[in-house]
Amino acid sequence: MQALKDRILNEGIVLGGGILKVDSFINHQVDPALMDACGVEFARRFAGVGATRILTAEISGIAPALTTALHLGVPVVYARKTKPITMPDTVYLTVAPSHTKGRMVELIVSPEYLGASEKILIIDDFLATGATIQGLVRLTQAAGASVVGIGTLIEKDFEGGREALAYLGVPVESLVTITKLDAMGIEFKE
Amino acid sequence: MQALKDRILNEGIVLGGGILKVDSFINHQVDPALMDACGVEFARRFAGVGATRILTAEISGIAPALTTALHLGVPVVYARKTKPITMPDTVYLTVAPSHTKGRMVELIVSPEYLGASEKILIIDDFLATGATIQGLVRLTQAAGASVVGIGTLIEKDFEGGREALAYLGVPVESLVTITKLDAMGIEFKE
Repeated sequence: MQALKDRILNEGIVLGGGILKVDSFINHQVDPALMDACGVEFARRFAGVGATRILTAEISGIAPALTTALHLGVPVVYARKTKPITMPDTVYLTVAPSHTKGRMVELIVSPEYLGASEKILIIDDFLATGATIQGLVRLTQAAGASVVGIGTLIEKDFEGGREALAYLGVPVESLVTITKLDAMGIEFKE
Repeated sequence: MQALKDRILNEGIVLGGGILKVDSFINHQVDPALMDACGVEFARRFAGVGATRILTAEISGIAPALTTALHLGVPVVYARKTKPITMPDTVYLTVAPSHTKGRMVELIVSPEYLGASEKILIIDDFLATGATIQGLVRLTQAAGASVVGIGTLIEKDFEGGREALAYLGVPVESLVTITKLDAMGIEFKE
């Protein structure tokens, strides 16, 4: 998606350790028009998968998941990283390593909003190692529901996430794919 | 706003301690069409305040802030509760008590996205004691920027938040105002 690629080229900052900082339009400040355009594009790509619900992880996945949900006409559920007091005592919980936090984080979903009959489209900001997304897959499977697609804004294809998710046999769509990311700059897959 | 009031009546659950659980359409599962309608309504109410940016707090403020930002055509910044490694060393940080977490939480904004010339519209899910919103006000003031309005989805008018914010002299708009919340039910201000 050219608009997203342009923003990454203009505003993305390469930090050490393969981290791409996109805090000016996705991860801290959010460009709502860009996120809406991304939601339109995800809705187009996943129009045929029959998703009944979108699942994402707080925090950075919420914006693209919400706009995708708006254009697909389905609810979105975001996995919490801490269990609020409004949640029931018994929940689905898994742990996944966080790249940007440097530690394990919990991902928690209430059984109230993840039923066995749901067809889940997972949306998140980044596909790197796929660890967070695999956590969301485990939550979906714990509920007896099925994953029907995975969409991310930005894929770093040198971190192996796509290969790690291949066993699911579902469409994995990224709006921008980065093939190289270092002090010399950012290279995209055409 | 009738659509939001209807959802609260149909799906809101009164927990102990004055907590209203709205996890099925705002706080865990999100209804994107309802959030979009709330964004349209906030954009209408704040059309004249000249906001250049929307400020909210992760996590539950993100959805209504994003849709409001979309309809006002301005960026949204969400205060983080933990400092990610993508943030600069020096940030604006304040602490505020969290009603639903039962402890103090940090609210952190990068100076990169909160400049002194900004006119800030604060959007959040709840106005209860106003403690979180006052934290966002302090961050805005620390940056030398000005608050031009405050909008919340649900106000609990018996917790004093509106009075606590009155000194700012800016419009405070809630889409639904609850006057009573107990085991007997929920009462709304007409």
